[in-house]
Amino acid sequence: MDLSSPAPFGQIRWDDDRTGIVILDQTRLPSEVKEVTLRTVEGIEEAIKSLRVRGAPLIGVTGAMGLAALSCGEARQGPLSEELRTSFAGWADRLAAARPTAVNLAWAINRMRVVLEATPGSSTDIAAALIEEAGLILIEDARMCRAIGEHGVGLLGESSVVLTHCNAGALATGGIGTALAPVYVGHERGLRTRVFADETRPLLQGSRITAWELDAAGIDVTVITDGMAGALMAVDTPDVVFVGSDRIAANGDAANKIGTYGLAVLAEQHGIPFYVLAPTSTIDHHASDGSAIPIEFRSADEIRRGFGRLTAPENVPVWSPAFDVTPARLITGIITEHGIHEPPYIESLGALRAGST
Amino acid sequence: MDLSSPAPFGQIRWDDDRTGIVILDQTRLPSEVKEVTLRTVEGIEEAIKSLRVRGAPLIGVTGAMGLAALSCGEARQGPLSEELRTSFAGWADRLAAARPTAVNLAWAINRMRVVLEATPGSSTDIAAALIEEAGLILIEDARMCRAIGEHGVGLLGESSVVLTHCNAGALATGGIGTALAPVYVGHERGLRTRVFADETRPLLQGSRITAWELDAAGIDVTVITDGMAGALMAVDTPDVVFVGSDRIAANGDAANKIGTYGLAVLAEQHGIPFYVLAPTSTIDHHASDGSAIPIEFRSADEIRRGFGRLTAPENVPVWSPAFDVTPARLITGIITEHGIHEPPYIESLGALRAGST
Repeated sequence: MDLSSPAPFGQIRWDDDRTGIVILDQTRLPSEVKEVTLRTVEGIEEAIKSLRVRGAPLIGVTGAMGLAALSCGEARQGPLSEELRTSFAGWADRLAAARPTAVNLAWAINRMRVVLEATPGSSTDIAAALIEEAGLILIEDARMCRAIGEHGVGLLGESSVVLTHCNAGALATGGIGTALAPVYVGHERGLRTRVFADETRPLLQGSRITAWELDAAGIDVTVITDGMAGALMAVDTPDVVFVGSDRIAANGDAANKIGTYGLAVLAEQHGIPFYVLAPTSTIDHHASDGSAIPIEFRSADEIRRGFGRLTAPENVPVWSPAFDVTPARLITGIITEHGIHEPPYIESLGALRAGST
Repeated sequence: MDLSSPAPFGQIRWDDDRTGIVILDQTRLPSEVKEVTLRTVEGIEEAIKSLRVRGAPLIGVTGAMGLAALSCGEARQGPLSEELRTSFAGWADRLAAARPTAVNLAWAINRMRVVLEATPGSSTDIAAALIEEAGLILIEDARMCRAIGEHGVGLLGESSVVLTHCNAGALATGGIGTALAPVYVGHERGLRTRVFADETRPLLQGSRITAWELDAAGIDVTVITDGMAGALMAVDTPDVVFVGSDRIAANGDAANKIGTYGLAVLAEQHGIPFYVLAPTSTIDHHASDGSAIPIEFRSADEIRRGFGRLTAPENVPVWSPAFDVTPARLITGIITEHGIHEPPYIESLGALRAGST
């Protein structure tokens, strides 16, 4: 496995003639490593909706590559460029709505729209420009991951123990992940890192996906249930906690997969540094603090019958937020592609904003 | 349902002629409410080993009632009393080894042995004495639960929110439970208590059993995953946390189902009182603190394929302690059948010991 190439785990690639995309079907992990080729807008939409591809950055890459492949396929049939433009508009609207909360999907689709509008010429010319732009989005995503890894690897020693939650790894991105990027960079440099992965109920992205990808890369990984993190800290203290984030407020409060907040409280209790690793696109400068971050609630059945078996009484209510908010005061540092940002975040993250405008 | 009767949820009862015991098969909850009649030592042993009956107090009751029923069955065949004594010794050894860590099982079986030795006369006389003793053990257990409930109910208001972990409810005992006893007593008195139940990975005793029994009793219960407790405290703060315990050290450190420690840390962070409810038989005065409590580790497959589906890679190791230790400093009070004991526990629990000798 060449960790420096885009999508090193086969997360996503073009099929041979670029009229389709091939994704790793993440719903089948860890029992099956199965690729699926998608050549229709229905297929791409279904793959995003049903979490065959997941992780905000990877969903963005999928939307962009999907639109390019569909355009390439239609261009081969030889239509007029106006027909392709009409088809594209329909596909883009449909895919953008597949998972409305993932900000990267809308962002990537918008980049593709802009390229389409800026490209004159035949449908073949348009398709070529879209293929190029989607390829660029993938490469940029992989570079963003690499940069986060380079900034974070300095926090690891010769043999460190890292605790992580959910999956903010390669399979959530087009590269080597966000929270796991320092572990992969360290692995390339010969560091012996041991990772403990919370299984992460209800959907088990930790045990199904994080454990699978680290093991596939030859990195020492051990699975625990979410409730075991406290016991682990008490007996075999991890050196650092690395987690991803779905949205970071201007003051540094960070929303991430449910269970992250409890982990942060335990880390503080045990004096373990707690880092949030995410691209700058995750920072929402309009949200002044965590209370402005909307929290998605998930279906009760993900808890009640998530394993195909009834594990709670049918009529008993379930409270199931998908995310929680970790207050900035519990976060030792936020690592983006630009570096390690320290408190007060209103200043360190604010400087990023100033730099980007 | 008459909560004041022993085993009000049908946890365990004699069959009609007292030559067998009828238990509620807890492995089938919540999808099936199914009783199983046990008339052989093999059947009783299997039911204990495979957790069809579980919870330290209820296992003790099951061992005692099981031995009495087996003796009653053999007495009906009309053997000499010496033959019954020999059979009993074999059954007792076998059942005592079914779950060696549950101290109540050995304790209950020992009480039965003492009665056997103290009873002269025919095999029918012996069987009658054993039936009486086992019935007493059940009633005492139910009374212990009731006393814990009476002491704890004062902590509940007209409408309180209680958070609990695992199952230290009726189905772990011969009565109305330990951690849930105050909730049941409050329910009888018209208090409107709302309970949040951690599902409690890996074996889901919270969502499968706690949710089932509270719902069956008409008490408002909501299931959350273990990782959601922090978010719950942040947005809809529970008034109190009630948990059980498997062993309490002399200084008040308490071992309980894995995940309890993390809950205690979160409760402290949010200023929520955290109570441990357990019979005095749970206190191990020989263990000076939590480090003297041995922690059982469970099979990796309970996490990897606990629901019949592979949810972590087969070859990836799993770290799976069954219990963790909550340090005494995080425990607001320990509630036993004798009252609410406050810190310093070395004194308040020590006084119980002095009183019992």
